[in-house]
Amino acid sequence: MEHIIIIGGVAAGTKAAAKARRENADIKMTLFTNEKHMSYSACGLPFFIGGEFKDYHQLVEYTKENFEHDMNVKVHTLHECVAINPQQNSVSIKNLQTNETSEHTYTKLLIATGARPFIPEIEGKELQNVFKIRNLEDAFAIIETMKKSKKALIIGGGYIGIEMLEAFLRQGLDAKIIEKTPHIMPTLDIDVADHLKDMMLEEYPNCVITSDNVTKFIGENGVLKKAELQSGMVLDTDLALLSVGVRPNSEIAKEAGIELGVANSIKVNKHMQTNIPNIYAAGDCAEKTNIVSNQPVWVPLGSTANKEGRVAGVNLAGKDAEFEGILGSAITKFFDIKIATTGLIEKTAKDLGYDVASVVIHSKDKAGYMHDAQPICIKVIADKKTKRLLGAQGIGYGDIDKRINIIASSLSSKMTVKEYINIDITYAPPFSKAIDITTTAAYQLDKILENQT
Amino acid sequence: MEHIIIIGGVAAGTKAAAKARRENADIKMTLFTNEKHMSYSACGLPFFIGGEFKDYHQLVEYTKENFEHDMNVKVHTLHECVAINPQQNSVSIKNLQTNETSEHTYTKLLIATGARPFIPEIEGKELQNVFKIRNLEDAFAIIETMKKSKKALIIGGGYIGIEMLEAFLRQGLDAKIIEKTPHIMPTLDIDVADHLKDMMLEEYPNCVITSDNVTKFIGENGVLKKAELQSGMVLDTDLALLSVGVRPNSEIAKEAGIELGVANSIKVNKHMQTNIPNIYAAGDCAEKTNIVSNQPVWVPLGSTANKEGRVAGVNLAGKDAEFEGILGSAITKFFDIKIATTGLIEKTAKDLGYDVASVVIHSKDKAGYMHDAQPICIKVIADKKTKRLLGAQGIGYGDIDKRINIIASSLSSKMTVKEYINIDITYAPPFSKAIDITTTAAYQLDKILENQT
Repeated sequence: MEHIIIIGGVAAGTKAAAKARRENADIKMTLFTNEKHMSYSACGLPFFIGGEFKDYHQLVEYTKENFEHDMNVKVHTLHECVAINPQQNSVSIKNLQTNETSEHTYTKLLIATGARPFIPEIEGKELQNVFKIRNLEDAFAIIETMKKSKKALIIGGGYIGIEMLEAFLRQGLDAKIIEKTPHIMPTLDIDVADHLKDMMLEEYPNCVITSDNVTKFIGENGVLKKAELQSGMVLDTDLALLSVGVRPNSEIAKEAGIELGVANSIKVNKHMQTNIPNIYAAGDCAEKTNIVSNQPVWVPLGSTANKEGRVAGVNLAGKDAEFEGILGSAITKFFDIKIATTGLIEKTAKDLGYDVASVVIHSKDKAGYMHDAQPICIKVIADKKTKRLLGAQGIGYGDIDKRINIIASSLSSKMTVKEYINIDITYAPPFSKAIDITTTAAYQLDKILENQT
Repeated sequence: MEHIIIIGGVAAGTKAAAKARRENADIKMTLFTNEKHMSYSACGLPFFIGGEFKDYHQLVEYTKENFEHDMNVKVHTLHECVAINPQQNSVSIKNLQTNETSEHTYTKLLIATGARPFIPEIEGKELQNVFKIRNLEDAFAIIETMKKSKKALIIGGGYIGIEMLEAFLRQGLDAKIIEKTPHIMPTLDIDVADHLKDMMLEEYPNCVITSDNVTKFIGENGVLKKAELQSGMVLDTDLALLSVGVRPNSEIAKEAGIELGVANSIKVNKHMQTNIPNIYAAGDCAEKTNIVSNQPVWVPLGSTANKEGRVAGVNLAGKDAEFEGILGSAITKFFDIKIATTGLIEKTAKDLGYDVASVVIHSKDKAGYMHDAQPICIKVIADKKTKRLLGAQGIGYGDIDKRINIIASSLSSKMTVKEYINIDITYAPPFSKAIDITTTAAYQLDKILENQT
């Protein structure tokens, strides 16, 4: 009898189970997760910590009981998959409460184990009040400590770092980011990232320190008190968050002989199938394809996990669906400053061998005479050879989201710069200039591309 | 010697002159406009009247003097073109201050005469304080009267009607729209338009009356005092605005033997060229092509006028550019309610013979746990035969603009519903749900399209 086992209960795992159930009412399904909670929005954790809402249940789409009832899937929380045995079509599952291990056979398996924060080798990292942020339990612990804290350090200036900086500042903490490299936000080009840093420092002077690193956490009675930086600076702090990147939870896959790809993520085809035909992988643990460069990449994002989970669910149910790939589209904000990107950044494109044309436009998001017109800045890059758009990054107080997503759609259809110019973007003074900033960018890129010798 | 004459000094005319100058520094150019001002944002007039800003100069991009200086174009304001003489390659121009008429020869001519409000045959329409809104002078007159008014009626519930309703309400007037048909906003499907009307009435009870019409304006000493409606109702009013649609200013073109198209707009090819090769037309007076249906249409919009002016300018300068067409993308707002559309509505698509699949989704613009998540509603339609997207309409308090423009880009590249699903839209809780409302719409459309027999 068909039995689908799903390892992982957050975005990809639950979406796959739900979709497989909709496609096939009869199939037997079992979901194991090593966490206490399931089906919660991990992307919402910084906003929960920042006080956007008080009740963590708002982050939870399904409780175990509701999910079992609605989806007819047997769910085991606090059960960790410790081994996959492809020869036996079985998984070894450890009950984290009893420490007992049991074997479960599947006809099809989905690995949706997600990713985990990378913990850098810093002396004192095991001190109390040094945190990572990945799941609800992390959030509860951070909130508990935060209530008694005055100062916080965030190690790493990526998306999570910036969102957690806002969260801590909103909660009244004196918080700052310590970023090892000279620039925050490695998913942006340096010129855009530096402009962002300037804007952040205008809002909160001293909220970002770059080109420095914590070399040692210093505690008293096992509790964090200070951080020593590479520069020699010693900062008092009550709380530290390690957010220097994530790693795919792919070890059990590797040990089972499943092929890994970029950054040790699990290699999958368009059906989310691994090299072992009845084993699928989806979400943050799986490799993706960048559809602009057609290169394998590893960009773990919640929106992708949902889509991949859906595709995996259709295939698990014996039907056919494909996931084409990603653009690495991402967005975040620091208070009113929005930050978004899609496709390739200039640096990546050049590394991949593209001959890149690029423009940076500073403008307003609305007609200049609207009282709430806000500054926005957009960088758009194109390929000199094919004249195709390659990617865009935007920051500003105004609506960046719209612009980056129009370009995301255009990247999906492999538009040239000239084709972009012809998009009939909506216009009214409260929403954009008569010629939108992205069209202006395309006009300027077109000029560069046409004047090539 | 080459001499370009441009008739019209608002969006298309000035954009064409500016672009032609950038392409060719030497060419002689003359611009005639029958208005006192030039190069102003007509789309900004309702916001000026609504008090968004006080100084009308903010609407003016170039004064006559600045334009002449910067663009090296001779400009004649208050000079009306009364005839085009293609055989002589000349135009007859009447100086509106002296009433003298003179002849001017061109090598190339651009007709950018725009459109004018349609004035319905209502008894009393010539009374003082019955207005139309098209140019700065209209706005000045309305503002003058508005200051002394308590009540205002707006005849016609389209884009301008809704924007002027907001303007009058913002200025403290008791204002309402009288719409002859049962539904406001003819550019929306009836189900969407009726939902919009309900939302508007929730904000301002009685601000819209449908299925009724002003049959007579009643005055005292030549000044408007009341309006008599078809229903028999008589309403006191100090001010009335006629906004029941516009007509292209194409009469001089027609008299010159230039071919007209849809709604008497001037027929042009992709180079913005009329049937007379050295006569071009651009902006609100010119016909357009809808790139979804590939049908000629007439949709006069400021954003299109700017783009067409630019293409005309390149061609006037002897180089080559093409304008592909439009999607009819448009947006407006009523206070915080946003209203946008792109591509075909269901009604139009059915009239054109498409077998239409359609979905209406009600959702939030952000993750539900964000305190400022707002309701949005989107209707998306697709062609059952080709499985391509055909159009979308959205209304709501949340960000509709982004969604409609992602779809606009997708319509430009003739995406299928399945291709739309694969667009990697940015996601973070303050900006959308993990699966954006438009992706949800595409999933549902895909299901309909796949389940066809």
